[in-house]
Amino acid sequence: MKKSLFITLEGPDGSGKSTIIKMIEEYLDKNGIKHISTREPGGIDIAEQVREVILNKKNTAMDKRTEALLYAASRRQHLAERVIPALEQGNLVICDRFVDSSLAYQGYAREIGMEEVMRINEFAIEGYMPDLTLYLDIEPQIGLARIAKNKEREVNRLDLEKLDFHNKVREGYFKLLEAYPNRIKKIDASKEINLVFEDVKRLINYKITEFLNK
Amino acid sequence: MKKSLFITLEGPDGSGKSTIIKMIEEYLDKNGIKHISTREPGGIDIAEQVREVILNKKNTAMDKRTEALLYAASRRQHLAERVIPALEQGNLVICDRFVDSSLAYQGYAREIGMEEVMRINEFAIEGYMPDLTLYLDIEPQIGLARIAKNKEREVNRLDLEKLDFHNKVREGYFKLLEAYPNRIKKIDASKEINLVFEDVKRLINYKITEFLNK
Repeated sequence: MKKSLFITLEGPDGSGKSTIIKMIEEYLDKNGIKHISTREPGGIDIAEQVREVILNKKNTAMDKRTEALLYAASRRQHLAERVIPALEQGNLVICDRFVDSSLAYQGYAREIGMEEVMRINEFAIEGYMPDLTLYLDIEPQIGLARIAKNKEREVNRLDLEKLDFHNKVREGYFKLLEAYPNRIKKIDASKEINLVFEDVKRLINYKITEFLNK
Repeated sequence: MKKSLFITLEGPDGSGKSTIIKMIEEYLDKNGIKHISTREPGGIDIAEQVREVILNKKNTAMDKRTEALLYAASRRQHLAERVIPALEQGNLVICDRFVDSSLAYQGYAREIGMEEVMRINEFAIEGYMPDLTLYLDIEPQIGLARIAKNKEREVNRLDLEKLDFHNKVREGYFKLLEAYPNRIKKIDASKEINLVFEDVKRLINYKITEFLNK
């Protein structure tokens, strides 16, 4: 059994994911636990190039299957260059969004089908599934309102989708929670951030202890 | 049964594919048979953007699974914007390279596995398999020598691969000929071009007659 731990965070933009990840990192630092925190495309040159094609506002003709394949390609390159080497060296890796995002967004909300999208993602991830996935749950209206307040971040093509779409994404995550009850844990992200982090800490502590004792 | 015909041409660069396609087009024009001739990415903006990422000589860090996913993405967009609409309108469509290229190059020669690559291509093509595929067979040395003479065409990343790789691609096509004997037909492309075209004509005539009589 390899000594490594792969934790992913999921949830809509505006759920506080970035802040929670910073808090996890500080917590790990404070406890002297070595870790790597990343997100797709994460500065990986080829993954960035692919992501530019996906998010380019001019690409309105993009077919939904093309989009799903491009996300899988960007994921693969980031995984191959950053995540796999880190896991193989026995590290704790925290990744902001992973395969579940594609299943919820492309598979469920865009109605390609979760199994269909899982197929191309299985090709992309080659067995590197997360050990633990934290899903930060929040009502789309609340999440979108939080984004609107954040003026530092540029609005991209996906932000422009209607609220209906974001509601469907959430339903998609609910389906995933049913399908992977052991791997994915739901966290109420509408609460005050320190309370959210208390829930996060409780869930990661168990996995981290298990990882450190391997 | 829908009245449409989807013919693809396969074979290494230097096999005379482009010339043969021009000859097929002239032959169809002369006989008053309406047709559409295309190739990926074929000026489809999003497919072109993806292809640029694949062929960029600077992208030496590209993982082979990323490459396969990007080819599938480019294929999907070209199919969705050009091929599917044409076939749905009952047209005869000729396409220079299609799914078999990915199976031979990425699946077999790059050793990802043909079944693995077929999986992501099934996602990309959604059942739009060619009715007939002509494989122009030629020894890689001869094909590469022909390319070297053609100074108008820029040498790209794939041309730089070693001869071994091109030999493996050819073996891949041989596997495909075994796997799909009814769909894929092998043509000896080492012969004088007019003789090659005689073979091509014989193979397409049967399919075209069937198509016109639908």
